[in-house]
Amino acid sequence: MPRLSQKGIQLPTSPIRKLVHYSEQAKERGIEVLHLNIGQPDIQAPKEALEAVTDSNLTLLPYGPSQGTLSYRKKLVEYYAKHQISIEPEDIIVTTGASEALTFALNVICDAGDEIIIPEPFYANYNGFASAASVRVVPVISEFNAQFQLPELDKISDKISSKTRAILLCNPSNPTGYVYSEKEINTLCELAIKHDIFLIVDEVYREFIHEGAPHYSVLCNDKASEFTVMIDSVSKRYSMCGARVGALVSKNKGLIKNVLKFAHLRLSPPTYALLASEAALSAPDAYLKDVTAEYTQRRNTLIKALERIPNIEVSHPLGAFYCIVKLPVEDADDFSKFLLTDFNLENQTVMLAPAKGFYSSPNVGLNQVRIAFILNQEKLVRAATILEKALEAYKKFVP
Amino acid sequence: MPRLSQKGIQLPTSPIRKLVHYSEQAKERGIEVLHLNIGQPDIQAPKEALEAVTDSNLTLLPYGPSQGTLSYRKKLVEYYAKHQISIEPEDIIVTTGASEALTFALNVICDAGDEIIIPEPFYANYNGFASAASVRVVPVISEFNAQFQLPELDKISDKISSKTRAILLCNPSNPTGYVYSEKEINTLCELAIKHDIFLIVDEVYREFIHEGAPHYSVLCNDKASEFTVMIDSVSKRYSMCGARVGALVSKNKGLIKNVLKFAHLRLSPPTYALLASEAALSAPDAYLKDVTAEYTQRRNTLIKALERIPNIEVSHPLGAFYCIVKLPVEDADDFSKFLLTDFNLENQTVMLAPAKGFYSSPNVGLNQVRIAFILNQEKLVRAATILEKALEAYKKFVP
Repeated sequence: MPRLSQKGIQLPTSPIRKLVHYSEQAKERGIEVLHLNIGQPDIQAPKEALEAVTDSNLTLLPYGPSQGTLSYRKKLVEYYAKHQISIEPEDIIVTTGASEALTFALNVICDAGDEIIIPEPFYANYNGFASAASVRVVPVISEFNAQFQLPELDKISDKISSKTRAILLCNPSNPTGYVYSEKEINTLCELAIKHDIFLIVDEVYREFIHEGAPHYSVLCNDKASEFTVMIDSVSKRYSMCGARVGALVSKNKGLIKNVLKFAHLRLSPPTYALLASEAALSAPDAYLKDVTAEYTQRRNTLIKALERIPNIEVSHPLGAFYCIVKLPVEDADDFSKFLLTDFNLENQTVMLAPAKGFYSSPNVGLNQVRIAFILNQEKLVRAATILEKALEAYKKFVP
Repeated sequence: MPRLSQKGIQLPTSPIRKLVHYSEQAKERGIEVLHLNIGQPDIQAPKEALEAVTDSNLTLLPYGPSQGTLSYRKKLVEYYAKHQISIEPEDIIVTTGASEALTFALNVICDAGDEIIIPEPFYANYNGFASAASVRVVPVISEFNAQFQLPELDKISDKISSKTRAILLCNPSNPTGYVYSEKEINTLCELAIKHDIFLIVDEVYREFIHEGAPHYSVLCNDKASEFTVMIDSVSKRYSMCGARVGALVSKNKGLIKNVLKFAHLRLSPPTYALLASEAALSAPDAYLKDVTAEYTQRRNTLIKALERIPNIEVSHPLGAFYCIVKLPVEDADDFSKFLLTDFNLENQTVMLAPAKGFYSSPNVGLNQVRIAFILNQEKLVRAATILEKALEAYKKFVP
């Protein structure tokens, strides 16, 4: 058999993927699994979006413009203006999900062997996108005890080498829920300018802010406009994960020109999903306000329920719909497996995301898990109860 | 400003893209442009496909399985069985278009610096997918005078080096319309086995065979099953270019396992488009039979109309909906520009695809163009008339 690529062989499989198998086995045994592990909202998409598709009367599905239709990009400009982000339609390349936007960003900025710096814990797929582009991830640890705020600037600049091409952030953060402040973003902008590198910020959770200051987009820093790239998606904002529509936004025209070349390659984003995404922007402002309020209530309920459990520590998220929790166990990955293979409470259990998959450094965050609050409040309270009982049972199980 | 990647800067822009600008200007001047340059069908998609979408009653759009739903993959297995292709659902990874399938194939087979061999002329985006994966394309010329059949085996094996990881074919071919024979495919399979490399065949035009033997899929060669990868798409088959649904199929389980890792990275193919693609498989067999008959009629009409023009040579395509035409000009790219900038016949002109974009070797095919027969017969005849008059006018224009 011919050999396969090293980048394929070495592409990391996240610990969550490994647990999926046990979760399926548990379901086969008749156990209900409450999924605290995934970021797939259970909230309805705007009806405007879905109706745009079911009311469509296409007779064939042509390729659209590779950069996305002008009408959609114009509406996006209006949407961003509500967030004090001032851009033009030409600054936007519509992509097939934020995944493709991140791949485009890495491909247009990095050659094989280049490096990007990412504060960890970070979204596990960033590792994958980097591997696929033959790019090395250089992590900088952000601290649980500091609510995962930006690491000290020295710690970041120490990691900058001649191969560093960009710093990548997720704001609000998956998996920590931390929201980087205006000051933190501006500090990183200055660092990018100083070292002549890019600052890429994934802002797909922009709308979901639970406390503290409003979200500050990297595109609001005008001084750094040649140095910044923003990644976006409709997946979380409008509960349209399956649409696969995202965007890459930058005021750097040279960068956008090259991104467009990669966009031409894959011809166009999916037509039906674009119809839905454009129509979603016509939903009343109340839609996003209500969704955010719902997530905030879930967050508060979850934190309260978790903090009743002895010996666990909860990092309070300012945004998104995740939090990092320290469990009184040595190996949260093993505990997560235990929950699926050897435990149930009245035929129910929970599935967690072991945080070690969000760290690139070895042996960090081993007792941490990420919990997503994408279930209704009743289920979240129940999940916390199951977790509490499971921790008691696990103590006996792992002597 | 930070530097951009070499792979982005060097990503080739096809000559067609450069002409788009002139085409838009022509339209602004009130000229109707008959597009012979693109592969976007004007034929209706199966109504079953479109109704599956408009009848859908989703309230949110969840991620689907990264490899595509099992129900769709099972139906694909039935579809392939009609083409004597015997596979299992596990051999299929559903992708976001053939573009993504090709990217996955290159990423899972090649590391940066590796080489793939492609008979030229070939689909221009193959160059782009290779550049994006930091892979070098090694072309082998196939001859206009031999209807673009497979180059002699010696010429191909001469190009195999220690860096060669695969041979890539398009069958039926875009841009030549050539259909590789069972014997040619089997010969390449043996070559792949001998040199321990992969044979990747893009079979998106499988259905459209105009004369000669039926299509022979690379997956029909059982001996080489560990060495072969087939690329597919619904874009051309069902006139659903904008759906962005394709597939990568291989019986090599190790390869599929690694492709799935890349598929996990981008989460899932687009949900609505999958609904449409699955339903398209329920269209009666008459749908594809009628569509193929229509393309065959267009092909015959186009060839007849073109061969009336003095001093042009037409390569008769056996399949797909393209042919390569030799024009009595030195620089078909310049002539294609002339058509858009300096010529019209009663306010109509045509847009061609200069063939030099389909050759990787420099200075080859300069007098050739690719003509797509995706317009109705009346328009194709009109386009040939315009072409004839334009060639006369161009003689005076370029002394």
